[in-house]
Parts: sequence; C-alpha cells; structure tokens
Amino acid sequence: MASRRRPRSPRTYAASGVDLAARGRALNRLLAAARYRAPPSHGRLLEAPGHYAGLVRVGRSTLAVTTDTVGTKVLLAERLDRWEEVGEDAVAINVNDLASVGARPTAIVDTVLCGRAEPAVFEGIGRGLRRGLAAARCSLAGGETALVADIVRGVDLGATAVGFLPPGRRPILGRGIRPGDALIGLASSGLHANGFTLVRRLLDAGRVPLARRRPGGRQPVGRELLAPTRTYSDIVDAVADERGVVGLAHISGGGVRNLLRLRADRRYRLDRWPTPPGLFGWLQRLGGLSDAEMFGTFNMGIGFVLAVRGAAAPRLLRRLAQVGAPEARLVGRVLAGTGVEVPERGLRFTGYA
Amino acid sequence: MASRRRPRSPRTYAASGVDLAARGRALNRLLAAARYRAPPSHGRLLEAPGHYAGLVRVGRSTLAVTTDTVGTKVLLAERLDRWEEVGEDAVAINVNDLASVGARPTAIVDTVLCGRAEPAVFEGIGRGLRRGLAAARCSLAGGETALVADIVRGVDLGATAVGFLPPGRRPILGRGIRPGDALIGLASSGLHANGFTLVRRLLDAGRVPLARRRPGGRQPVGRELLAPTRTYSDIVDAVADERGVVGLAHISGGGVRNLLRLRADRRYRLDRWPTPPGLFGWLQRLGGLSDAEMFGTFNMGIGFVLAVRGAAAPRLLRRLAQVGAPEARLVGRVLAGTGVEVPERGLRFTGYA
Repeated sequence: MASRRRPRSPRTYAASGVDLAARGRALNRLLAAARYRAPPSHGRLLEAPGHYAGLVRVGRSTLAVTTDTVGTKVLLAERLDRWEEVGEDAVAINVNDLASVGARPTAIVDTVLCGRAEPAVFEGIGRGLRRGLAAARCSLAGGETALVADIVRGVDLGATAVGFLPPGRRPILGRGIRPGDALIGLASSGLHANGFTLVRRLLDAGRVPLARRRPGGRQPVGRELLAPTRTYSDIVDAVADERGVVGLAHISGGGVRNLLRLRADRRYRLDRWPTPPGLFGWLQRLGGLSDAEMFGTFNMGIGFVLAVRGAAAPRLLRRLAQVGAPEARLVGRVLAGTGVEVPERGLRFTGYA
Repeated sequence: MASRRRPRSPRTYAASGVDLAARGRALNRLLAAARYRAPPSHGRLLEAPGHYAGLVRVGRSTLAVTTDTVGTKVLLAERLDRWEEVGEDAVAINVNDLASVGARPTAIVDTVLCGRAEPAVFEGIGRGLRRGLAAARCSLAGGETALVADIVRGVDLGATAVGFLPPGRRPILGRGIRPGDALIGLASSGLHANGFTLVRRLLDAGRVPLARRRPGGRQPVGRELLAPTRTYSDIVDAVADERGVVGLAHISGGGVRNLLRLRADRRYRLDRWPTPPGLFGWLQRLGGLSDAEMFGTFNMGIGFVLAVRGAAAPRLLRRLAQVGAPEARLVGRVLAGTGVEVPERGLRFTGYA
C-alpha cells in the first residue's frame, strides 16, 4: 500500500495489531510449501490467483469456493450479547466473495469455535445464518462446532461457501476490464465485518459508551457498528449475464484496494465516490485516522463495485434498480495506468496487501 | 451414549472440558433457528442428517462439502514446535469425511487463525497441507488467514473440503445396510486428531515427558501422539464402485459410535476388533480410563470402516489390499437390532453424541 499523503496519525490498522504485511509474508510461505497439482480425475483448478474465490472445474460444472471468518467483530457481538448480526455476516461475507467471480451460492458450512456451548448464543447465530441464507438463497449443508476452551476466548465464527456458475456463464474475473469502463457502486450497510480490531481500539481509547448515539446517529453506536453485512450475491447474480458486465469486486478488508484484485494493470479512478455515511467520518475523527487509512481499511459506504462497459452503464444502472439496488450509482472509471485513486482525497493505492 | 459398564474412573472426555451433550443441545438450537429451504435455482440439498458431509445437487453434478478443525491437537504441535503433522491432519480429517459419503475430493480451503503470523509455523502448515493434498489428490483452492490475537491463543487450524460423486456413482449413505453385512476395518495411523483435550490433561496430570518413549514405543511419545491422520479417501474412492459396498464410516471423534451415523436401526457387533496398538493401552492406563471412554472417544486402531455385503467381503478385502490397504480386515458384522457392541469389552453404545 502506498498513498500520496503520509498518515497524519500514529493510529493505523497495523498498529492496532493487524499487520497485513507480516500476514502476507507468512501466507506466501504457506502457499509456496502447499503447492500441489492434482490429477484431472479429481477436477481441474482454474488459476485465478489473488481473486475472491477458488474455481474448480468438475465434469461440466464450474464450482467456486471461498472461506472467511467474521473476525474480531464477534467481540462486539459479545459485548452487546447480540449474535444474530454476526451470524448473518458469516454467510454474507462469503457469498459476496462468490458473487465476485460471478458464481451463484448453493451451500454454506459454518464453523463455531468456542470455550463453552451457550444455547442462547448458538440460537442467535442460527437466526442470523438463516437471514443470510435467505438473502443469498442458499442452503446450510453442514458445519463444525468445536469446544476448544484452551485455544479460543469467547467465540470465533466463520463459514465456507460453495457456489457454481449457472449454465452458459463463465467466471467473471475482470480480465476484460479496459480503459473507458465505468465503475458502479452498491451501498454498504455499515462497516460490514472489516477493521474491527482497529474499531475496538478506537472505542476503548475514546471510552465511547456503546449504548449512546453518536452525533447524527439514529441508533446506539454499538448497534450501528454491529449492523450485518449486506448480501450482494442475489443482486449480482441477476445482472451477471447482462452484456457489458466485466468485473466484480467485493469491497471487504483492504477497502477500495480490493479493486486491484481484478486487474492490477489498470487505473481505477474513483472520482464520483459518494460522501461516506456519517459513521465513517465519526470513526475517522474519533481516531484521528488519515484518509488513506480509512479508504484502505473500510468500505467507506460502497460494499460492492461492478466494472462495466461505459456504454452499458445506464442500462445496467436501470437493471440494478429493478433487482434490489435502486441506490446503485457511478463511482468512478477505468483509465490506462495502474493503482486505485480517490482524487478528492488525494489518495493513490498501488498494492492490495 | 450408554454403556453396560459404568466408567470406573472420574476421568472422562466430558470432565476434561469437552461436554459433547451440552454441545449437542446448543447445536440443535442453532440448526433449528437456521432452517431455510433454498429455491431449486440455487441447487438442491440432499437430506442426509447426521452424516459426515452435506450433499448438494447442482445441475448434473452431486457435490459434497464438509468442514472440520484439527482442534486442540494444535496445542501439542505448539509444544513440540512441529506444524507439518497438523497441516496434513487439516486435509485428511476432511477428505475422510467426504470419503464417508462416497465423494471424491476436489478442493480444500484452509483456515488459520492466529495472534501473530509466524513464517516458520505457516511454512510447516503449508508442507503438511501439501502432503494431505497429495495423498487425497486434491487442490488447495483458497483459504483464510485471520490475525485475531484477541480471540485465539496460539493457532487454530481448520479446513473445508469439497468433493463430487464421479459419473455413475450415487452417494453411499449406508441406507442399504442390513443384517448379514460384514464390517471391514482400515488401520489408523495413531490418534488422528481426536480426543486431544483429554490426552493433554492426562499428559499434564501424569507429568509425562514428551521427549521420552513410552514402554514399547518406537519414538518419543510427543511424536507418536502427533502422527498425522491417515488419508482414506483415495483407498475408498478406488473401491466405492465395487458391488457390495453399502456403507462408509470415518472413525473420528466419538470412536466406534460413528457407525451409528450410517443407520441407527442396525446392530453393529464388533466381535473381531483387533487388539489396539500399544499407544491406546498406555493412554488408558495413564488415565485410568474405562473401556467405554476409550472406544467412545478414540479410534482404537481402526480409522475407517466399510460395511459390505457378507458374500462380497473376501473379494473386497483382496481389492483393498491392491489399492493401498493390505492390512484391511474383518472387524465385525451387522445384526438385527440397534447399537454398537464390542463384546470382548462388554461394551454397548446406543447414541452417537
């Protein structure tokens, strides 16, 4: 990651204990050591390095698989003793990654790690899973509940999603993205499930009472932060076969840098990014965070971006309005060059992690 | 679980902090709350309640998906600072569950939760994943690495496996099991990845030095306990289309009670169970554990059981010897009635969890 401005505050995501660069280095060691090529009788892995979901060809079907955890957002759930939201997150964060390759979700398996099996916690998670499943229209095909008091403090919650490419659809990996394409953004429902280690540090340092509203907030800050991740898979699935859709990006951990996962040799100029909802500005002021830190960590109001042919944008915006995203809007465009830019804030990012 | 004898010792798996009954109750709450039926456009979930893997029909393909973690065996890996074994476990425990429905593995995604990303740990896990992938002949299609120091002490390691039913094969769920069938056992490679919370308590209470051999052991006890789970998926895949194969059971957490996951309305009489390897007897003596506790927690030397037609057993034993399991042997038979019996030890189990 690089930005034109240096952060003006010592508070960064890395300083909060999440060193993404160290993670990247360790992960590269794991991936290099794990390299193995399976014989064709066991399916064929399609290469899509760095993308949101793995793709496997089995017989005539192309499958997509992705896995993610809710991360430290569960600690907020614990403080508020509300588990439905993170249950919904566990599904949404994964089906949104499936949507990013054009796959339709079919099955979720969840993983709950905990010290003790609290029935009320499990029921809350179950209700949230149901909301997520219904939004993504997919099935719970299993799961794992591990009682591991010696490893986990509280609860860890994650899931894996399996999807497929509907007949006639090829994976949408962004390889066709070119200068002149438009970037359409879909609104987020809040922070989703990213950056919570930093958020909690800010809340603690600022001694923020979770039961109080922030200035301009409509509900207590705790509830606002806990709002579940919006599910985009159904909306994206409804437009994925339209002409002109060339790239799909879930804006998750890493913020707008997620666009670099499509094609890194294009320039994504976010010159029509809408003013982020008040929650983001409030957090930024609370922590004295730089714009670079905010746009490189959080979704800043846009949780999913579609790269589309410029001429197709008006038609696709109308179509998106019909299928559940009336707020869809142009947020930027693709140019020759590299990096993700937010010109209004003087930002330029050149790496994802 | 029930047994004819009461445990003679207060040391049980539940007393070690893993209360499977409490987990079962909480899990039922989650499952009831999460119930949702997806529309056919998103695939069709095949009902196989309690089975080892979820099954989904997508187009002409039948997929299987299963997820599991290595559990507290990672704490032993940490003490010995050896990570390759648990990396291999993460793959093996999942592909063995796929094998239990007759599915062939195609893709694995792993999840590593940790406080810090240690390159040497990640590389060890990667090498182990590679061994597991090669044994199962499947691909690593992605993964998640979460830095969650506030939730996890040390490392948690898990994976999800996706498999498919090869053309012409239907899921093998044990529904055709009937009196007269034979039970064939495949040897385990040690404890695999089950019961480690109890094992660690025993080691600590007995102040066992991990670097020393137990009486009769060929290597230090720590290394013996850490031995990776044997991969059965390739062996099972090689015989799954043979006539007479009617049920498949991975003997994982819950020990021989796993047979009840096939058909609970049959009686599984394990009257030819081989003498368990010395490691199991040593553990039993160390903790003063009952036979019921041992057979209801550990694999006791047999990590996978095939239910086959009685008349087909000799042919299938010969075939198993050809495809990598020369030690395959009859371990029991199916009778009318219910429960799992180990007559030599006077044991009878009537419930799985």
